Amino acid sequence: MRSYHVNSGAGISGLSIKDHPDPQPGPGQVLVAVRAASLSHRELMILRGDYVLPVKPDVVPISDGAGEVVSVGSGVHTAKIGDRVAATLFPSWQDGPFGLQHLPQLGGSLDGMLTELALLDESALVPIPAHLSYEEAATLPCAAVTAWNALTGDDSGPLSGQTVVTQGTGGVSLFTLQFAKALGARVIATTSSPAKAERLSELGADEIVDYRTTPDWPARVRELTSGQGAERVIDVTGDLGQSLRAVAIAGHVASVGFVSGNPPLLDPRAIFNSGAVVRGIAVGSRAQFLAMNQLIEAHRLRPVIDRVFPFDQAPDAYRHYASGEAFGKVVITV
Amino acid sequence: MRSYHVNSGAGISGLSIKDHPDPQPGPGQVLVAVRAASLSHRELMILRGDYVLPVKPDVVPISDGAGEVVSVGSGVHTAKIGDRVAATLFPSWQDGPFGLQHLPQLGGSLDGMLTELALLDESALVPIPAHLSYEEAATLPCAAVTAWNALTGDDSGPLSGQTVVTQGTGGVSLFTLQFAKALGARVIATTSSPAKAERLSELGADEIVDYRTTPDWPARVRELTSGQGAERVIDVTGDLGQSLRAVAIAGHVASVGFVSGNPPLLDPRAIFNSGAVVRGIAVGSRAQFLAMNQLIEAHRLRPVIDRVFPFDQAPDAYRHYASGEAFGKVVITV
Amino acid sequence: MRSYHVNSGAGISGLSIKDHPDPQPGPGQVLVAVRAASLSHRELMILRGDYVLPVKPDVVPISDGAGEVVSVGSGVHTAKIGDRVAATLFPSWQDGPFGLQHLPQLGGSLDGMLTELALLDESALVPIPAHLSYEEAATLPCAAVTAWNALTGDDSGPLSGQTVVTQGTGGVSLFTLQFAKALGARVIATTSSPAKAERLSELGADEIVDYRTTPDWPARVRELTSGQGAERVIDVTGDLGQSLRAVAIAGHVASVGFVSGNPPLLDPRAIFNSGAVVRGIAVGSRAQFLAMNQLIEAHRLRPVIDRVFPFDQAPDAYRHYASGEAFGKVVITV
Amino acid sequence: MRSYHVNSGAGISGLSIKDHPDPQPGPGQVLVAVRAASLSHRELMILRGDYVLPVKPDVVPISDGAGEVVSVGSGVHTAKIGDRVAATLFPSWQDGPFGLQHLPQLGGSLDGMLTELALLDESALVPIPAHLSYEEAATLPCAAVTAWNALTGDDSGPLSGQTVVTQGTGGVSLFTLQFAKALGARVIATTSSPAKAERLSELGADEIVDYRTTPDWPARVRELTSGQGAERVIDVTGDLGQSLRAVAIAGHVASVGFVSGNPPLLDPRAIFNSGAVVRGIAVGSRAQFLAMNQLIEAHRLRPVIDRVFPFDQAPDAYRHYASGEAFGKVVITV
Repeated sequence: MRSYHVNSGAGISGLSIKDHPDPQPGPGQVLVAVRAASLSHRELMILRGDYVLPVKPDVVPISDGAGEVVSVGSGVHTAKIGDRVAATLFPSWQDGPFGLQHLPQLGGSLDGMLTELALLDESALVPIPAHLSYEEAATLPCAAVTAWNALTGDDSGPLSGQTVVTQGTGGVSLFTLQFAKALGARVIATTSSPAKAERLSELGADEIVDYRTTPDWPARVRELTSGQGAERVIDVTGDLGQSLRAVAIAGHVASVGFVSGNPPLLDPRAIFNSGAVVRGIAVGSRAQFLAMNQLIEAHRLRPVIDRVFPFDQAPDAYRHYASGEAFGKVVITV
Repeated sequence: MRSYHVNSGAGISGLSIKDHPDPQPGPGQVLVAVRAASLSHRELMILRGDYVLPVKPDVVPISDGAGEVVSVGSGVHTAKIGDRVAATLFPSWQDGPFGLQHLPQLGGSLDGMLTELALLDESALVPIPAHLSYEEAATLPCAAVTAWNALTGDDSGPLSGQTVVTQGTGGVSLFTLQFAKALGARVIATTSSPAKAERLSELGADEIVDYRTTPDWPARVRELTSGQGAERVIDVTGDLGQSLRAVAIAGHVASVGFVSGNPPLLDPRAIFNSGAVVRGIAVGSRAQFLAMNQLIEAHRLRPVIDRVFPFDQAPDAYRHYASGEAFGKVVITV
Repeated sequence: MRSYHVNSGAGISGLSIKDHPDPQPGPGQVLVAVRAASLSHRELMILRGDYVLPVKPDVVPISDGAGEVVSVGSGVHTAKIGDRVAATLFPSWQDGPFGLQHLPQLGGSLDGMLTELALLDESALVPIPAHLSYEEAATLPCAAVTAWNALTGDDSGPLSGQTVVTQGTGGVSLFTLQFAKALGARVIATTSSPAKAERLSELGADEIVDYRTTPDWPARVRELTSGQGAERVIDVTGDLGQSLRAVAIAGHVASVGFVSGNPPLLDPRAIFNSGAVVRGIAVGSRAQFLAMNQLIEAHRLRPVIDRVFPFDQAPDAYRHYASGEAFGKVVITV
Repeated sequence: MRSYHVNSGAGISGLSIKDHPDPQPGPGQVLVAVRAASLSHRELMILRGDYVLPVKPDVVPISDGAGEVVSVGSGVHTAKIGDRVAATLFPSWQDGPFGLQHLPQLGGSLDGMLTELALLDESALVPIPAHLSYEEAATLPCAAVTAWNALTGDDSGPLSGQTVVTQGTGGVSLFTLQFAKALGARVIATTSSPAKAERLSELGADEIVDYRTTPDWPARVRELTSGQGAERVIDVTGDLGQSLRAVAIAGHVASVGFVSGNPPLLDPRAIFNSGAVVRGIAVGSRAQFLAMNQLIEAHRLRPVIDRVFPFDQAPDAYRHYASGEAFGKVVITV
């Protein structure tokens, strides 16, 4: 079987394919024939060498993938041959709050999913929604679970009745839009082009703010919320100062990444002055993944896929994704 | 203008129509031309004389109604002539937990909505969802808000990923089914006939248990949940012993009423032994009503109406509702 | 080494002592020289045969005990020889909500602590507070953790500012009193004698209600709370109808047991009418045990011990405890 | 009666005393003979002109004070002549989350407490703990309620079992230390001198870190918490980057001020990378004030007062407080 491998900081050109003997599942392990893998920003960070968590040498990259169970080890109870599954990004994070003990992760300190056969712990798997293809299901583990956690992980009551701000058209933002609408929230989506605006409207966004023509988008969010600000801003840019200007007193800013790489420094007084909460979101637990899947099934939600590349063109997939022009997820079939 | 009046315990035959001069709104008050009112079990209890809260003599009955603002008093900021509104059952309960101070209620210690013109405090109104008729909106204040509170009022995390049990085809149960499905839960609905079962399936119920052919429905719920029990049971029968057999450890039973009038006594050890929580649900706050309406709008949900009666036939509406045969809500147009 | 053994339903006279070879800890296991064990109501239920969970034949009884680590198996990281430890009642319940998978318990489906040497999983141990004797520490696992969970387990905000009702002078009630006072609550304690009333006052109770001279103690609780009722009632009697008359709207009744054996049946309408929450409390997790110990240390709290019996007189300890006259815990030294 | 007055930005020399006729309480109002007022950082910010909220011209400064009710207006039910009371900083914030509607505040957009007679709404008063002097009670409204909110306002479970970091010896930090110890937490306190360290130990701090001799105090906090970090950091400096290095994954940083005036800019990636929550704390509600007072009474806690100045030397009190050398609160008697 073949796997891609890379070292932290090696860049896209550092990706290489290697041949291996097929692995055998040990006790509690499951062998998954990966059908699709999907890119998220952590994959770019790993190749740039600025990822915050440890990356093992010659790692099989990419945390997100889905496939079919082809073999199970002794003592495996919850998976059987033929099951359609995805892997959780942090295999040991089953439920409850995140902790130091949960840091090992696929495509980082553990081998990931850009491989024909992945050896995974039974407890790291979740069944994928029946109406999704493998390509669609491969997009869920990082971006969708992050969006779910950002929206529901603080147990601050039902989302219905709240206004949620999303930024741009990356994976987390589109999942946030879809989940927030399904859960009854009003969504204000920022974007940079009329073409993307139209697609955001089709996905259900109630209001669109073009941050090119309206650079002071937080002021526009305040206007659209009678001066109160939005109850939630899901910040993917890292420019928290802007998000804190858009959020309501006692509202929530979820910090889920920094797509631009180097966000502007923040005057820390902005947090105190906002009276809001800023929460760093690190994906989510397996229990959250399962709960999210039930919503996806109930509403027949479909992940937005920008483009699909074959296994042999994985470096092209990375390049396309790195361009920042994708509307939704970039997928690699295996 | 005309209003129905009744005394606690007077029975359906005690309902009488009286003529009154049109009222004028004082400071902070709004005059609403009621278009529709809707029956819930409290109305039957009031006429039977076994309602738990005080009922004023010669009260204008029925808490639930919707109409159009026709006049506003001085100092009114949030309502204007022409607004389509419903009234909250407990006018002073704006937000936060329920308390003794919130007990005054429409159609009980305060005059209610079975009238052509209702004089209400500005703060007791909520706008109704744009896609609903007045008949549909009139069904929301008691049954729908109760269902919403039962499902979301304990801040115990997203409903998606949970299994919810509903009982029968009354208003609270059908709203619970609709909301639970919209929020991503799996729903097991109990009923007593194949015809009703079919309609429950059309509304989205994942599993139906006919409690006539399967009298031990809690055992069936356990089977359908791999022995765990359901995370939530919304109990409208008052037979909490059965619901406690169907609920999961650390799950929630919402006690929202007792349609049969005299539920079987409960061995209190059943609560300890279940390891679950039982919560008495008294409708909900205005903030919860507003949040619920946003979900109703987002999913274009429509209340299920069994039958509509004209104002002059209100006693017939009561009689039909009291028969217990209704599938959904019984409405009186004004 | 010697252990007591008993069968479910065998009564106090069914207790027998047996000699065994000293056990050896396997991987992840710890051998504890038990210094003291303590009785709680579950022990009486097991001997009566009316305990709700499975009891293995010839079980070593008693869940609660404390001792010294005398030997550790391979792979044990968190315990070492000489450590002073107590055991958790449900060894697999580490954190989060209780579930079916946590049901195995000491002195029930697993051997318990009325033994000279107990073989326990490393993860089932907690260090005991430094200022406590083994006799004192042996009282914590069931009664104290139950009281802690009843007071703090529902995350409903700080206890300071609330009024808490305790019932009688058993272990759970006295721990509840001590913890509630430490956390800033006002405590109303019920009791049946002036002598016990005096001791409850010494322990910090703000108000005492003698339920012999004031049989309608719930009415007295309402008087003492300006008609509102108490925010929390920790019910050990099982007579939930009384507790629901004493609790405030939106308050909490914790059902932690039924000392009388056969509590009166409950009209289930009382829960709906109270607008309160009733929660069944099954001890608590290891994380809750650790948190509780930190409070015990911070305030140098000391468990109230009624009487201490030597190992050979364990049946006398059971008899004394069964009399219901104890003020606090009954302990058996090993 | 005499009051101090000042304009925003006028500096300490801008304080002036004026004579007024004694005010009369209108409906719902209470006249309080102020006995003591107390300084917090907001008072310095107002005089410097960099306070974030509006300040009325010629305002009577200082939000914090306590006194005796000397006259009540019509319709006042909860206060009577002779009551010992303090005022809440945000008079309209009774309960629940903070919102835009609660922004009016004493000593800012409303007249404050550096006056002989203060006219206040009945709903803005709280009774003061019986064991406290007026000087002590005057220190509570801003600093103590802020500390209370920072520790308990996010409903994230009991504090017992957590480690809390406090910074320095200002009012908020000392109240945090006292409350955290009373609630069972372990406290690590940072300070800059051995003399202050000794007093912090006397107040109950478990560990002291001298940030002069140990400039990398966050690293020391990690050492003292087995590498995990502290569950809570109550940040008064505004240097959130440091606090985020000291906090545990999924922990809480409360941002309650920035004593140094110009805190270092924050790399926003530090929040994402910490996996923690940062919450801006704006004092607290009246309900929180009442709950806090119950803890203060239960444990006979006493605010730490650095120095007391007479009314005529109020400017000296400001100067002394502005020096930053105070250990605890600076009070002005009236």
